[in-house]
Order: sequence, then C-alpha cells, then structure tokens
Amino acid sequence: MNITIIGTGLIGGSIAMAIRGFSTKIIGVDNNEENLKTALELGIIDHAMDWEQAAMISELIILAIPVDAARALLPKILDVISDDCVVVDMGSTKAGICNNVRNHPRRSQYVASHPMAGTENSGPQAAFADLFKGKKTIVCEQELSSVFALSQAKLLYKIMGMNILYMSPEEHDKHIAYVSHLTHVIAYALSITVLEIEKDEKKIFEMAGSGFDSTVRIAKSSTSMWTPILQQNADYLIASIDKYMETLNNFKTAIQEKNQARLYELIDEANKIRKVLNK
Amino acid sequence: MNITIIGTGLIGGSIAMAIRGFSTKIIGVDNNEENLKTALELGIIDHAMDWEQAAMISELIILAIPVDAARALLPKILDVISDDCVVVDMGSTKAGICNNVRNHPRRSQYVASHPMAGTENSGPQAAFADLFKGKKTIVCEQELSSVFALSQAKLLYKIMGMNILYMSPEEHDKHIAYVSHLTHVIAYALSITVLEIEKDEKKIFEMAGSGFDSTVRIAKSSTSMWTPILQQNADYLIASIDKYMETLNNFKTAIQEKNQARLYELIDEANKIRKVLNK
Repeated sequence: MNITIIGTGLIGGSIAMAIRGFSTKIIGVDNNEENLKTALELGIIDHAMDWEQAAMISELIILAIPVDAARALLPKILDVISDDCVVVDMGSTKAGICNNVRNHPRRSQYVASHPMAGTENSGPQAAFADLFKGKKTIVCEQELSSVFALSQAKLLYKIMGMNILYMSPEEHDKHIAYVSHLTHVIAYALSITVLEIEKDEKKIFEMAGSGFDSTVRIAKSSTSMWTPILQQNADYLIASIDKYMETLNNFKTAIQEKNQARLYELIDEANKIRKVLNK
Repeated sequence: MNITIIGTGLIGGSIAMAIRGFSTKIIGVDNNEENLKTALELGIIDHAMDWEQAAMISELIILAIPVDAARALLPKILDVISDDCVVVDMGSTKAGICNNVRNHPRRSQYVASHPMAGTENSGPQAAFADLFKGKKTIVCEQELSSVFALSQAKLLYKIMGMNILYMSPEEHDKHIAYVSHLTHVIAYALSITVLEIEKDEKKIFEMAGSGFDSTVRIAKSSTSMWTPILQQNADYLIASIDKYMETLNNFKTAIQEKNQARLYELIDEANKIRKVLNK
C-alpha cells in the first residue's frame, strides 16, 4: 500500500512515524525542500515526490500542510486520484475546506478531520510517533464520505492511537476557536506584551517562573501554520476574543474598584476549571 | 535552633521539608486548623503553636501567609521578638509590606523576599522539598536589613537551593506584575470564558488539548492567596492589563481586517519568546 503524506513537518512527520510498519512505502511531499530532505535523512519517509506524481500512485493521501494551502490543494488532488484512493486532511479549521469541495464529484473519497495534538515545535525533527496517542480527533461531515473512505480514516486513527469525535464543520470551528485558537492568541499577546516591557526592563525574564512559562509556551507556535488558521476561523475567533476581553475587563474593574469580594468571586469561578480538567 | 513557619500551606510546608535536618525544631503556625493538623500528621512540622508563643522562642520566623495577612501581622511580630530573631517573608508583593514596617524600630531584623516558585495546588499536602530548587528568589531593600539578618536569609535560601536577585520593592512589584500577576489574570479569564461557553456547549472540554491545558493551568491557583496579591499590586497590574489588551486588540484588528501580513508579523514577534525562554 502506498501512502503519501503531504507536509512532512511536525504533524505529517509524526503520522509517518506512527504508521511505520503498516505501510510498505511512505511517500513524502513538501514545498519546503529542507523539511523534505530532513524527513528522508531521518528515515521518516521512504521517498520524496511531487504531489501530482504521488497522488496518482497512492491509496491513501494525508494532507498535513497549513490550512490555506490544504484548502487550495485538496480539489486539485481529488481531480487526479484513482477511484480507490482516500484523502484525509489534518487541518485545524474545517468549514473552509469542507465548503470548498462539497460539490466535487469525488467528495466521497475525502474525509475531513482534525487530530487534536501538537506541540509548540515544528518541522520533521520535532516529530515523534506518540504525539497522537490517547488524544482525540474530530471527523466532520462523515455522511459525505463513502463507507470505504471512512473505514480507511478510522483505521488510520486507530493506528495513531486516537479516539474519534464526530461533529459538523461549523460546530468544530466554533468550539475549537475557544479551546485552541483563542488560547494561542492569548499566549501570543502575552509574549509580545512582556517582550515589549523587556526592552526597558532587561531583567524581567530572570523573574519569569513556571506559571509564565506554561502560559506562554504555545506562543512559540509557528507563523506559517497559525497565521492561516487564525485567519480562516476569523468569525468565531473574533467572537471568542470579544468574550475573553469582557472577562478580562471584569477583572480589571474589580481590581480598580478595590472590590475584593468581586475579585474573590471571579477567581473562585476560574478555579472550577480544576474539576473539568480533572488533573 | 527554633524555626517558626507561619502558614503551613504549599510554600510554608515546602520550606519546612527543604530545611528539615538543619533545624532541631520546626514550629508551625496556621489559622487554618485543618492545614495545621495535616502538616503535623505528615511530619512537616514538629509542633503547632499560636504565633505569639512561637515568635518569642524562635530564632528564625518565616512568614508564608497571604500578602494581606502578612502585611498586618509583620509589625506585631517585630514588636514581640527577641534581639537575635530574624523574620523573613515570602510574599508575592513587596512594596506594601516594606512600606508598612519601614520605620519600625526592629526593621533591621526583617528581610523582605519573594521566592519565585509555586504550583497551582495549595495546602501542606501539596508541599514538596524540591519546590524551590534551582529557582530564583528576590530580596528587596537589603540595605535596611542587618548584616546578621541578611546572612540568615541567605543561608535559608542556600539550603532551599535558590539564587538571590536584589531589587527595590517597586522594581519587584512592577516586573512581577507582568511575568506572574498578569499571567494569572490571563489564565483566570480564559478559564471563565471557556466555562461560560460550556454551559451551552457541553462537549467543548472534550476538545481541549495540551495547549489549552498548559495555558489555563494556573487558573487553578487559590482565591485566598491570589485575591490579596492582585489587589495589593493593583497599579502595576492594571497598567499591565491595559498593555496586554492593546496587544490583544492588535490581533483582533489584524484578523478582522484580514490583514494576513500584519498577523504574520505579530505571531513572528510573539515567537521571539523562544529565544528568551531558551527551552
């Protein structure tokens, strides 16, 4: 079985490592020559090819490139693949890509998904086989995928060690705006704010502790992956930023008005995350 | 040597465990009867006492209670201690407590400090000896402490495994507003925002990943410790919230205006945290 992975970075590379042994051949495709070379050298992929070549000889194509690139490339891939080929994408936004191929004659050969796993690092050198283990993946619009395509995607996620949740692209994009995209914006903004202060206060990072480190960790996440994600989920993300800023303002007002009871109440409310995360 | 630790929670309990073996007797003081009982049962402290009793028979008193309580109690402790007793506080704000005892006749027996270590958990059951190891502590206004008092505090921090930075209370409060207090407000606000959404969208936490978990982790931090901290550092904290909201607004505007170049630039700026944290 030929499997092609388009995008040999953190996600694509980790998938390759997770499914190694289940495929006779893993073909890597990447616009980034350096990533492709590294993935080959590390033995993450067996061959490097252009996407057109690879698409025509593969039974399974995994799309693990930035969401804008995936959205543009998917219809072209569907145009050239054979009848028994399945395409699964890994993008962090789902409405855009789904809407873009809804009426494609080969829509049933595509499975829209989003494995919710990642780190703040990128590139094939950051890849590891256990990245996905025990985590959740979302599959959207499964009713538009063929039974065969869906079974292939399920098998893939089983091998990767993931549990599948099903929802509509809109539900996905709305929820993920809060728990992932907003979270990234928050960390990015904290990073910029403190770096800005550091220009005058050189010693500030000597005072940064583990709380700062963990909150700001994902601010290291790459521009090329995250710029298009935030852009593609603009509407839900802006709604979540607005709600977040309201809450932030509640804290500010309580502190400004020296309203200790209100501040206590807010922190008490925030503490309830302990029960939900259960850790 | 008698050492008294006032406040037998995460910080006080961890100090007791770290200095165990260097003191013949560790006396615990706590308004919270349950914490005191647990600290005794766990062998973290040797004796439980009222603060007045303990203060009179101790050579070293460590104040590890919420910053409002510490600020109120410190002058009373200084009033009753013997000439060879040293008091060190562990509070996360420094200007308030320092200003409050600046003209006390026993000011030289006090060392103002802030060990920058902690977790999102609280109580003696969360304490562990290595909490402080390799981390930094701040000492403020060391020129107002006697040579003897300062040497005792240095010894304490050496045993705890911490490196000392020196700065003024104002410098401390300004810097810590950004790297610790703002960071907590950000996490608290994220927690509340997502919990609020969860009321309608029950499944949202099934979608939370490691990025969300790490950013929101410190939102579990306790009300009793953090309400007075945020309140005592109100001025610097509000300034930091304002700057943070400006940055957040820059993100919102870039996304709203579909200004991908600007969004890329912002994320690129945020990514620079990687070099600073060097992890």
